[in-house]
Amino acid sequence: MGEPRFAVAGIGNAIVDVLSRVDDEFLDHHDIAKSAMTLIDEERAATLYDAMPTAVEISGGSAANTIAGLAAFGSKAAFIGKVKNDQLGQVFRHDITALGVAFDSAPATRGAATARCLVMVTPDGERSMSTFLGASVGLGPDDIDDKVIAEAGVTYLEGYLWDPPAAKEAFKRAARLARRHGRQVALTLSDAFCVERHRDSFLDLIRDEVDILFANEAEIKALYQVEVFDEALQHVRKHCRLAALTRSAAGSVVVTGEEVHVVEAVKIPRLVDATGAGDLYAAGFLHGLTAGRDLASCARLGSLAASEVISHMGARPEKPLAQLAAEAGLGS
Amino acid sequence: MGEPRFAVAGIGNAIVDVLSRVDDEFLDHHDIAKSAMTLIDEERAATLYDAMPTAVEISGGSAANTIAGLAAFGSKAAFIGKVKNDQLGQVFRHDITALGVAFDSAPATRGAATARCLVMVTPDGERSMSTFLGASVGLGPDDIDDKVIAEAGVTYLEGYLWDPPAAKEAFKRAARLARRHGRQVALTLSDAFCVERHRDSFLDLIRDEVDILFANEAEIKALYQVEVFDEALQHVRKHCRLAALTRSAAGSVVVTGEEVHVVEAVKIPRLVDATGAGDLYAAGFLHGLTAGRDLASCARLGSLAASEVISHMGARPEKPLAQLAAEAGLGS
Repeated sequence: MGEPRFAVAGIGNAIVDVLSRVDDEFLDHHDIAKSAMTLIDEERAATLYDAMPTAVEISGGSAANTIAGLAAFGSKAAFIGKVKNDQLGQVFRHDITALGVAFDSAPATRGAATARCLVMVTPDGERSMSTFLGASVGLGPDDIDDKVIAEAGVTYLEGYLWDPPAAKEAFKRAARLARRHGRQVALTLSDAFCVERHRDSFLDLIRDEVDILFANEAEIKALYQVEVFDEALQHVRKHCRLAALTRSAAGSVVVTGEEVHVVEAVKIPRLVDATGAGDLYAAGFLHGLTAGRDLASCARLGSLAASEVISHMGARPEKPLAQLAAEAGLGS
Repeated sequence: MGEPRFAVAGIGNAIVDVLSRVDDEFLDHHDIAKSAMTLIDEERAATLYDAMPTAVEISGGSAANTIAGLAAFGSKAAFIGKVKNDQLGQVFRHDITALGVAFDSAPATRGAATARCLVMVTPDGERSMSTFLGASVGLGPDDIDDKVIAEAGVTYLEGYLWDPPAAKEAFKRAARLARRHGRQVALTLSDAFCVERHRDSFLDLIRDEVDILFANEAEIKALYQVEVFDEALQHVRKHCRLAALTRSAAGSVVVTGEEVHVVEAVKIPRLVDATGAGDLYAAGFLHGLTAGRDLASCARLGSLAASEVISHMGARPEKPLAQLAAEAGLGS
């Protein structure tokens, strides 16, 4: 064991976001589930892209956004994920390494293109995502760099990895490795539909392998198949050592077997684009946790990072989060 | 002749912008000329991109931005320019056609990648651009669609086209075609360094072929090699039928042989990114002109469009300009 080289290593789908502003009619007309992430094939991706207004390309991916957020806080971080050696793959690689993140996953040289997520942002700031996984499905157990996992205080995994079959195996291998090296394993449930797709294996995984669980209200209720948030809270505190549950404008609740902390959201003038809110909450929380902060401070750092990312288009922070934390009296 | 199918056909370099926020030290350290456009080769593009912070990809290109602006005003417009059939080429094509612009130029199937402009935005909102022309240099006379030029009220050309040799020939062919069909030819000088590179041929071109000239203060002074704006003004009114000269926060001056109109800039809360200011001024101006508006109204429409684009990152309008014009009492 020893002092970890990385605070956090993230494993996730390596995705470039393609963001457009649309109205609710566009979602209806194109049969896009609002505020959710839907997997689409290449053909549907082409059709939807043709129908979309002018767009902006920004690196994304759930765990990748979290890792970018950690770097913006000044944490040492690593990312494992699969791009192709195409232009969007270069964009993804550039953006994550420009933050100082270690990203050594070899790109695919053939097969599907780098993954894209078509993000439709409606006037209420909600994002509705259609993801073509592309090269991401090529991530397998062999892509897990043992040294990186062994040297990361926390290995952070996104639930979306459960969709591509080989990535699921990569995920399991990384979790086992982390635990063998006495490191912690964190999981985000990613999306309520993702929970519906994989509920049973998520329940087993959380019981057996997960130290820190991130979920929003819809996800945690879907996981335990309950209607009321407080019921889900009682389930999760018996099931997982530490859970951080986000409730949008209502803030977050951090729960362990013994403690419950309710922390307010950071107020913002206007919700521009909700993309990345949960990812950046996890970044702030893990930044605090790996720096030895108390749980309430971790939640406040999470809220702070989420408030920054929902104030502009795109799921990566635009401001140095370390500076924002210092200004908010949350600096280390 | 007859009623034109397009208000404006634009011909220009087809470029995807890669935008990052940097400080002035970054420009110094990497030897980037501030507030100018510098041509770079592929190797330098790779080196600079490696050094750049996290970026956002947005379609750009000077004349293409103007054409996008015209479409956002509700004008019928066409664009001619060369991309490669790669991912960034698809991005460029998507974004311009999503606005309803006719863009039928065949993509290159081999050779250099789609052109990229690395745009460094400093805290003062100024942009410093390093352009790798890539596939753009493949634009030649054969790419000029006679039918499009014949059916466009104005053919709009960017001075930057004088850099790739074959594009210069394409430019000349388009100008001749437009005039033969009784249409107007508009030119933007693009950049003071571009004027330095091509002064003599620009002077001939303006005398022989150009009906409407767009330039900013630095460009028009560079063209006539004078130190004082008013001197340049006296030169241009004898040299060109109609010139629209932009002076950043000081507004614009529209000049013909007989008339001079001084129009104020539209005030904005904060200059975020100056990229596209001149391009969008030209869009508003040409939208007004082709709709038969008086020259002062054309200039006001130009200022309005410029004010929108400098209030956010990227050189394409985010808001429907027709609506902004109506709100400002400038609707048709």
